[in-house]
Amino acid sequence: MDEVKVIEIKKSIFEDNDRDADALRVELKRKGVYLLNLMSSPGSGKTTTLIRTINLLKDKIRIAVMEADIDSDVDAVKIKEATGIPSIQLHTGGMCHLDAEMTRQGLAGVDMTGLDLVILENVGNLVCPAEFDTGAVCNAMILSVPEGHDKPLKYPLMFSVCNVVVINKTDVLPYFDFDMEKCREYIRMRNPKAQVIPISAKTGEGVEAFAQWILKEVENWKK
Amino acid sequence: MDEVKVIEIKKSIFEDNDRDADALRVELKRKGVYLLNLMSSPGSGKTTTLIRTINLLKDKIRIAVMEADIDSDVDAVKIKEATGIPSIQLHTGGMCHLDAEMTRQGLAGVDMTGLDLVILENVGNLVCPAEFDTGAVCNAMILSVPEGHDKPLKYPLMFSVCNVVVINKTDVLPYFDFDMEKCREYIRMRNPKAQVIPISAKTGEGVEAFAQWILKEVENWKK
Repeated sequence: MDEVKVIEIKKSIFEDNDRDADALRVELKRKGVYLLNLMSSPGSGKTTTLIRTINLLKDKIRIAVMEADIDSDVDAVKIKEATGIPSIQLHTGGMCHLDAEMTRQGLAGVDMTGLDLVILENVGNLVCPAEFDTGAVCNAMILSVPEGHDKPLKYPLMFSVCNVVVINKTDVLPYFDFDMEKCREYIRMRNPKAQVIPISAKTGEGVEAFAQWILKEVENWKK
Repeated sequence: MDEVKVIEIKKSIFEDNDRDADALRVELKRKGVYLLNLMSSPGSGKTTTLIRTINLLKDKIRIAVMEADIDSDVDAVKIKEATGIPSIQLHTGGMCHLDAEMTRQGLAGVDMTGLDLVILENVGNLVCPAEFDTGAVCNAMILSVPEGHDKPLKYPLMFSVCNVVVINKTDVLPYFDFDMEKCREYIRMRNPKAQVIPISAKTGEGVEAFAQWILKEVENWKK
């Protein structure tokens, strides 16, 4: 098994996270690096989606991944083995989210030379990560079919802070009572601008659309 | 649609939650009421599992349910309509967990006369709720098959504080790479005493075993 760098994240001392997040975005803009904050429930398929997406993008742009987790480095190892791109593990030491300063601690462990995109896989949680601006250029989230189409009603903040909602595991749609139209409607209630991209990370269906969305975002950011 | 009581939970001012939780358990013991704290990820099927289980138990013991949610009262309404038992909604106002004092605020809205069991459906989250003792007699959790068998590796605290792990959505086992034996092994790593109960809340398979476990627990508590 590959070894990955593990960074133990310390609790932040900054009081004004929003200001700190804005400052981080300014730094990233100057360096021409796009930071994507990817959030979801545990088990929605973040890592599998990332592997598929990165393999479509890695010949076009230079990517690194930061995997935030309470414990373990299974995801960072998986990403590195399956894509060959730099992947580091951030241990939050039990903390349920990342803020801008914690994200900066992670970025300090990433070689930014010539980099276009850093993807932060946030802690699996639909509540807390939504409350803290990480300094990312954009928030994206994955909702998986087995979780149900009612989630935008129950986790309003998460859906309102995300400009793209990937709906994963469409391959199992026949086995679940998941109403895609209702889901789109509930997402629009929370965030009318949010783009909805149905995919199956397992079969690969729809992943190209997510990859294209990322590519366009990165290009615009570097202008 | 039925109307349900909604309680807006205030942030706690108590500093020593563990002591407060112990005090709440003493009160509950005196009243002969068993409090079960049920935790899981969003979309694991907590509400459907509860409806099935309560319908098996409601003629044998007197039950009430407290549904904790960031927002919305869809779950409390669903439980009340499907089981006919008293069900109240706790709004956490964005907070990602309940502690003992918050649980007590909820219990103040429940008619405890002649009651045997209160089930607290905690906020859907595998991180924060595990960190706070609610004062419950026992913690239970639901892990659903689509979330994957590796979750005990990634959310160690949640699995170590739960003495029963219900594995839901076994009806979709053929469509997911879920290894039940590995899952049992990972759960044992976190909590050797934890009981694992595979069920399908959709078909009803295995729910009787969970109901029997609850019944035995309640009987022991009332001795």
